[in-house]
Amino acid sequence: MRMSQLFLRTLRDDPADAEVPSHKLLVRAGFVRRVAPGIYTWLPLGLKVLGKVEKIVREEMDAIGAQEVRFPALLPREPYEATDRWTEYGDNLFRLHDRRGGDYLLGPTHEEMFTLLVKDLYSSYKDLPLSLYQVQTKYRDEARPRAGILRGREFVMKDSYSFDVTDEGLEKSYQAHREAYVRIFDRLGLEYVIVQADSGAMGGSASEEFLAVAETGEDTFVRSPGGYAANVEAVTTVVPDALPVDDAPAAHVEDTPDTPTIQTLVDHLNEAFPRDDRPWTAADTLKNVLVMLHHPDGTREPLAVGVPGDREVDAKRLETQVSPAEVEPFEEKDFAQHPALVKGYIGPGVLGTENASGIRYVVDPRVVDGTRWVTGANEPGKHVIDLVAGRDFTADGTIEAAEVRAGDPAPDGSGPLELARGIEMGHIFQLGRKYAERLGLQVLDENGKLVTVTMGSYGVGVSRAVGAIIENSYDDAGMIWPREVSPFDVHVVVAGKTPELFEGGDRIVAELESAGFDVLHDDRPKMSPGVKFKDAELIGVPTIVVVGKGLADGVVEVKDRATGERTDVPVDQLVAHLRD
Amino acid sequence: MRMSQLFLRTLRDDPADAEVPSHKLLVRAGFVRRVAPGIYTWLPLGLKVLGKVEKIVREEMDAIGAQEVRFPALLPREPYEATDRWTEYGDNLFRLHDRRGGDYLLGPTHEEMFTLLVKDLYSSYKDLPLSLYQVQTKYRDEARPRAGILRGREFVMKDSYSFDVTDEGLEKSYQAHREAYVRIFDRLGLEYVIVQADSGAMGGSASEEFLAVAETGEDTFVRSPGGYAANVEAVTTVVPDALPVDDAPAAHVEDTPDTPTIQTLVDHLNEAFPRDDRPWTAADTLKNVLVMLHHPDGTREPLAVGVPGDREVDAKRLETQVSPAEVEPFEEKDFAQHPALVKGYIGPGVLGTENASGIRYVVDPRVVDGTRWVTGANEPGKHVIDLVAGRDFTADGTIEAAEVRAGDPAPDGSGPLELARGIEMGHIFQLGRKYAERLGLQVLDENGKLVTVTMGSYGVGVSRAVGAIIENSYDDAGMIWPREVSPFDVHVVVAGKTPELFEGGDRIVAELESAGFDVLHDDRPKMSPGVKFKDAELIGVPTIVVVGKGLADGVVEVKDRATGERTDVPVDQLVAHLRD
Repeated sequence: MRMSQLFLRTLRDDPADAEVPSHKLLVRAGFVRRVAPGIYTWLPLGLKVLGKVEKIVREEMDAIGAQEVRFPALLPREPYEATDRWTEYGDNLFRLHDRRGGDYLLGPTHEEMFTLLVKDLYSSYKDLPLSLYQVQTKYRDEARPRAGILRGREFVMKDSYSFDVTDEGLEKSYQAHREAYVRIFDRLGLEYVIVQADSGAMGGSASEEFLAVAETGEDTFVRSPGGYAANVEAVTTVVPDALPVDDAPAAHVEDTPDTPTIQTLVDHLNEAFPRDDRPWTAADTLKNVLVMLHHPDGTREPLAVGVPGDREVDAKRLETQVSPAEVEPFEEKDFAQHPALVKGYIGPGVLGTENASGIRYVVDPRVVDGTRWVTGANEPGKHVIDLVAGRDFTADGTIEAAEVRAGDPAPDGSGPLELARGIEMGHIFQLGRKYAERLGLQVLDENGKLVTVTMGSYGVGVSRAVGAIIENSYDDAGMIWPREVSPFDVHVVVAGKTPELFEGGDRIVAELESAGFDVLHDDRPKMSPGVKFKDAELIGVPTIVVVGKGLADGVVEVKDRATGERTDVPVDQLVAHLRD
Repeated sequence: MRMSQLFLRTLRDDPADAEVPSHKLLVRAGFVRRVAPGIYTWLPLGLKVLGKVEKIVREEMDAIGAQEVRFPALLPREPYEATDRWTEYGDNLFRLHDRRGGDYLLGPTHEEMFTLLVKDLYSSYKDLPLSLYQVQTKYRDEARPRAGILRGREFVMKDSYSFDVTDEGLEKSYQAHREAYVRIFDRLGLEYVIVQADSGAMGGSASEEFLAVAETGEDTFVRSPGGYAANVEAVTTVVPDALPVDDAPAAHVEDTPDTPTIQTLVDHLNEAFPRDDRPWTAADTLKNVLVMLHHPDGTREPLAVGVPGDREVDAKRLETQVSPAEVEPFEEKDFAQHPALVKGYIGPGVLGTENASGIRYVVDPRVVDGTRWVTGANEPGKHVIDLVAGRDFTADGTIEAAEVRAGDPAPDGSGPLELARGIEMGHIFQLGRKYAERLGLQVLDENGKLVTVTMGSYGVGVSRAVGAIIENSYDDAGMIWPREVSPFDVHVVVAGKTPELFEGGDRIVAELESAGFDVLHDDRPKMSPGVKFKDAELIGVPTIVVVGKGLADGVVEVKDRATGERTDVPVDQLVAHLRD
């Protein structure tokens, strides 16, 4: 491909709306172009990379015996109605009518369609196990499309589904996919971790995510020295043993004027009620946070979440727990409707479905029986001290919504957690029988009895991978493509403007191409070498061959894009050199 | 691929909604599966064929230097508003809102997006010529989706666009595409014709269609012995010379009771007003047909079309002429609003914008000055005879809306036309500067002056091709795939149930695969040879290898799916035999 012909304009400046490196670089290097929020056009260079990612994914899916199909993106409402997802998806679903008024949606994910297809064609245990997949354009009307192609509204996903009669079969299909994913992400050249995941809106049990490690990632994950790794939404709290309540003093309400925040409260406690053994800290307090849940059916439900005062409620962990409901702020008007709530001094005394507010009250798992807390006394300027869980109050349940912090113990005892960020690249999970039950996917077993099929669901963010690879692999000058997904194998730069150099470039490119290399040939006649070098670094083909002054002596310079290392190579040894 | 593993169920019966052979066979052979009207899922076998068609199209586009990009299918309204197509597409467009209320559409074709993209990146004549293409899923909310994948609502198209500074450049780009299309359709194994076409809603001038010849096709085309070929919508009438009016008798109104139809009128004329030289025929009468035009902006306009009484108004020719307006019937209520119209006896006397009805009146080009007609006298039971065009009435214009009949003269004098039917597979046309003007795509020419770019637009129905190939190539037993698009090269059928035969099959398949053949291996253990043969014929892989009793003597049977010819071939010569 000659750059004088290539449909490309590189840009010197970052696009105004770009925050993360991959977004900036993919636009600047002419790989993608924005059409609307979260909606992009793939230009020739970007499309080549996307095609290579798709190819790797297909090869590894085919290798585990998964068979490719392709569903429409435009789907009728009925199957999604049967599983409630027409409603549960809320605003994230693009919905539309056809000319006859029929309800349609743009597929965000295809569990229903795969389930119904298998139901349509298969009826016996002998037909299983079966794995099907598709590489398809998906649609989600994200509230906040961001980071270019990392979180778009139209994007390419590979989704596959396994169908088994038994749980053991599902486990095997799951493992086969897991191994295929390891190969896929290895080949993509990604730095990734496999973490335990919450399966979110999808339901089901065992679930792992493949996260590309990247500071710009939206997902926070934890890992321990002992090998535990999980998405922060999936981390479970190590629950302390219950404490005896016998020797605890009785709860007592105290004046704590002007202490609407945890910090003012702690300061006041240490001043007015100093303890002998140790000062009061935020960890001694129980903070009660009110939110409003917005259920998919449109109803709103207030919820009170009690967490130790030294931790915030983590919005994403909370969202995961209450999904498919969405979390909205608890506003002034909501307070007005619940006069039992005294802002800044809310305590368990009025919380819970059995108490004055009637609001459901869930607490952090650390709030075990026997723990003693300072918390709101439901009167302005008053707190209650020595309030004992299990003795003085009982919540409606527990919730994993408090923030996870570096140093927290791993739930499996493998040591203190560290936190890092990543981009979700793959998600595998054992859906189980949820969809098969709702949609009636049954087969006859060996005894002629109808049994419900158990399913696994496995996704790879194909277009997202193009961005994630860059987040893993770039420098100040531009992108650095791993060899297997690079748009070209070699980038030949003619550095100079003499006819000899252009002829030399043509000759060298012809030779490389006949040796099987896919070559990007910068033959632009009027561009300075400096501009060409800049473009080459920006585009990030891993090997750059500079045809310059040395050509007169039969030598070209081979530059490694990643390391910057330069080697003079005789032209007649170039093919052999590049093969190594 | 082992058929014991393949995700496939062949069906014995035709699907209830299928009328054309390709639809029946693609569903019965498990290539596609219906999801909603005009919306299909591609199963493994169908997807393989679709992939091969896509590959051929890409190779031939790349060969003429066209570069692939990929636009989103979900597009914002604005560009389509700028070209009026947001409105002109009417009900054929799938429209939707995003969560913020923004207007979007599902792309039916991408002229606007390509034009804007080039405008975005390029600015000089030096950047041109340029050809870009995409293979993309398109959406049209067809009023009558039909014939399976031949006319769907979600389908795959290749669309490309050329960009040139000069008309000569456009002509060259057009010819390059034309030649690429010839190669594409040759490789697809289609029987096709290239016809002159009306460019319909797309605007522009030179325009040709590639039609697959098929009785089930929706398009009618004509061809002459001298090589003229055109879509019936594009046929122009050979206009006779005007006649002198001097010797024509004066027009006279006559009683013609109970003659509301052409046939009753002709019978009455021959009885009541016999002519000496020849009987009256329908060709002597002028029939005036009323329709209602529905314009994209929602307005309705009545239109009167005058055609010789021996020809019908051809709905598709009329639609093409009035596009983007749609043609609707002229109903009783419309007659009620136009009291000047006497149903069954409508004549030029009241038609035309200057006459009593005020309705625009257009006539067939054969109605030249001096022609004499019997036509309605605008009174019940009365017709006017010897009404002379140009003397007694003048229409508001002419229209190419009368049916084209076998035997009509070709417009270029190349002989009488014959009619046949076809499926539109490709459409190439010189759009010219319409889109570039509307969207402001200009470049600097050699003199530094801004000039508007001229464009060509070129489409291939990629998913439609899968159906069209079958319409060209099937028999009672099933499909017959041309070699280059067949889902497999060879179909090996193990005809029997002994372990020796299965082992022999495995061995032969392994050998064929290592020789580079893509093999479908019918290894199903419990299926009778009869069922397997039926499936093999239905699926239509061009070469079937039967591993049966002969294997004991080292011989297999090779069957040619198309001819039915069977040859016994020694196993050790099989690879060589198949290579020939």
